[in-house]
Amino acid sequence: MQIVSENACFGGVQGVYTHSSDACNCDMTFGLFQPAEAKDGPVPVLWYLSGLTCTHENAMTKAGAQAWAAEQGIALVFPDTSPRGDGVANDEAYDLGQGAGFYVNATQDPWAPHFKMWDYVAEELPNLITSDFAIDADRQAITGHSMGGHGALTLAMNLPGRYKSVSAFSPICNPTASDWGRKQLSAYLGDDESTWAAHDASLLMREKGFEGPILTDTGTNDQFGDLLKTESLFEASAARRQQATLRMQPGYDHSYFFVSTFMEDHVTFHAEALYTG
Amino acid sequence: MQIVSENACFGGVQGVYTHSSDACNCDMTFGLFQPAEAKDGPVPVLWYLSGLTCTHENAMTKAGAQAWAAEQGIALVFPDTSPRGDGVANDEAYDLGQGAGFYVNATQDPWAPHFKMWDYVAEELPNLITSDFAIDADRQAITGHSMGGHGALTLAMNLPGRYKSVSAFSPICNPTASDWGRKQLSAYLGDDESTWAAHDASLLMREKGFEGPILTDTGTNDQFGDLLKTESLFEASAARRQQATLRMQPGYDHSYFFVSTFMEDHVTFHAEALYTG
Repeated sequence: MQIVSENACFGGVQGVYTHSSDACNCDMTFGLFQPAEAKDGPVPVLWYLSGLTCTHENAMTKAGAQAWAAEQGIALVFPDTSPRGDGVANDEAYDLGQGAGFYVNATQDPWAPHFKMWDYVAEELPNLITSDFAIDADRQAITGHSMGGHGALTLAMNLPGRYKSVSAFSPICNPTASDWGRKQLSAYLGDDESTWAAHDASLLMREKGFEGPILTDTGTNDQFGDLLKTESLFEASAARRQQATLRMQPGYDHSYFFVSTFMEDHVTFHAEALYTG
Repeated sequence: MQIVSENACFGGVQGVYTHSSDACNCDMTFGLFQPAEAKDGPVPVLWYLSGLTCTHENAMTKAGAQAWAAEQGIALVFPDTSPRGDGVANDEAYDLGQGAGFYVNATQDPWAPHFKMWDYVAEELPNLITSDFAIDADRQAITGHSMGGHGALTLAMNLPGRYKSVSAFSPICNPTASDWGRKQLSAYLGDDESTWAAHDASLLMREKGFEGPILTDTGTNDQFGDLLKTESLFEASAARRQQATLRMQPGYDHSYFFVSTFMEDHVTFHAEALYTG
């Protein structure tokens, strides 16, 4: 693992690291914020999964999460959204290929050789950060934005016991029924839609739910509101009697101005679960 | 004036606007955050001047200032750092020409036709925002980063009565004695160094000082520390017995990770001056 950069930040360290990934079969880069408390021993961690077109960097520089994570003594990890590099397949569209991994393990060509983002985020990167940094594997929580909100919700429901809490900002909620989903799931997983179900938060909510608390925020002026299918998750959550706070925020859109506005609420929400859950 | 974008943000509105500038003789773009209180009448304003290579956008997306400005009911204005466009002179270097206006009125070719950043920030843009938005011309404060810290300090000391308070993050403190300064002042103002003095914070501190409070923060690990000449401003301030809090922050560098870490302190500092000064 190589250090790309380390910056002092809110009393802790905002680092960027590159490593050779077995899951993705290429070099991968991630951001990791360690609060001051990490000097004294393992701290809880909040995963932040980013949306379409993002790298590890967007949320690290624009979400304003470090301030609140420092206050709570929580680490933040910012994975990339896909494998990258010259030898990695890509597509001209912004919503397929590099920058658009959708947090699945691709089984179809040309994606299968590298696009194993599920294994990367669910297994390889957690193993790496909990072995190489002072991060407590038993106190993890997860959030994300848009495609990353989809990733956070599907990881949380598919891996019971892994995360104490899950939240999301303007998540893609029902990708099997949306143009933000059908195109990508078809490309990465093939045409057998039965393989898609494990990657749809609304279907998972109907099947499994989540054993901990859930918080989501979505703006009433989200310009991609029709693609998110927020109503599907709301409906499924209520049907299941899932512990959840699901909010629609008046006037807000899909941007990081929205994400940063409500970041304090999300970090505080996770801190409560990580320290008492 | 044209609206480029308006996003709901911390209960207020983060806008970006373009207008035809008389001072710079080209279109100029700026960011303006209006807190919720602006709906009810004029609010105080904090100017944020950015550093080399920045546009209006960098601090708007990375400094984390809106959270604290919203808490205090203060507007934020983020001007660009130079004129821009196909007809505007430029240089291959990152530290001259577009993105590097240094907050002066150029008198030398090829810069003189457009590079009037002093007039733009001191006169034209204040007139525009106080006439077209609910901003109180009698309650202004100013801050900035690096080249923008230089701008903030020199504007504050040259325009007594204009700003209630001034602060800066890792400011260029003594440009007439630094490679971040001599090159640009020579290019924009010519070789007569007597014309440079009005644009050097350390020289201004010796000559004039500032009637209100000053706060500066600079990191002990600033990679450009040699170019900033922080010691010149500290020395001149103490010699004058200037009211000031001048801090060196252990471990921090020149980045926005540093700026965002101490933004709350700066906004709180200005709020105190704006509401009681």
